[in-house]
Amino acid sequence: MVNKIEHIGIAVKNMDDANVLFEKMLGVPSYKMEAVESEGVLTSFFQTGNNKIELLVATNPESPIAKFLEKKGEGIHHIAFDVDDIEAEITRLKSEGFVLINEVPKKGADNKLVVFLHPKNTNGVLVELCQEIK
Amino acid sequence: MVNKIEHIGIAVKNMDDANVLFEKMLGVPSYKMEAVESEGVLTSFFQTGNNKIELLVATNPESPIAKFLEKKGEGIHHIAFDVDDIEAEITRLKSEGFVLINEVPKKGADNKLVVFLHPKNTNGVLVELCQEIK
Repeated sequence: MVNKIEHIGIAVKNMDDANVLFEKMLGVPSYKMEAVESEGVLTSFFQTGNNKIELLVATNPESPIAKFLEKKGEGIHHIAFDVDDIEAEITRLKSEGFVLINEVPKKGADNKLVVFLHPKNTNGVLVELCQEIK
Repeated sequence: MVNKIEHIGIAVKNMDDANVLFEKMLGVPSYKMEAVESEGVLTSFFQTGNNKIELLVATNPESPIAKFLEKKGEGIHHIAFDVDDIEAEITRLKSEGFVLINEVPKKGADNKLVVFLHPKNTNGVLVELCQEIK
């Protein structure tokens, strides 16, 4: 089972502009920017209560975010749920018939281990599970 | 300023199938289904921590959800932020240059007053603000 919405990932074209806009919208500034080179993304995080908004820009043309922007344009890219034990959740979800994009958790932004569920089995929603690295 | 992510709205084609799938994913059943006739939608809510997932199906062909499904297919439809004083937030956001789809808050699902920001000014993200009706 999942604990809460950890963050919502939003694909944007220009990080500087989006940081200004989301600061105005949420009333708080970005508290951290972090590149994830393996994913070809630069991220920017905003805290809202105990959830986060994660802005994402592509840092190379092969980035999943570059492909998403080309296909769908800017907008919500994924929803990430916080879990305590990502390995146990992977086992549970596979037994329920969900398909994972990566079966082995990988290091994501913000000190997390992450896996993604394939959106073809989740009503078109790209779902991330993430576990804080202790 | 916004308090937290109140819910994420997800447009689906078949509520029965989606209710089963999200119960498997989240590990909890839908706790409420509610029709919002003015919007032409049937909603189903799941609690995850202090956030919710709101599934949405269209109940008539003119529903915004019917149009969304036709244009974009199933997937994340909007992100809703909880606010204490929706009128004050409307005033604040308009002064920051945001454009509202409805300027007067209307009754949404789950005992809320709601307004939507136009996605053309928010990086393609349909943003809802909602205030609990006391």
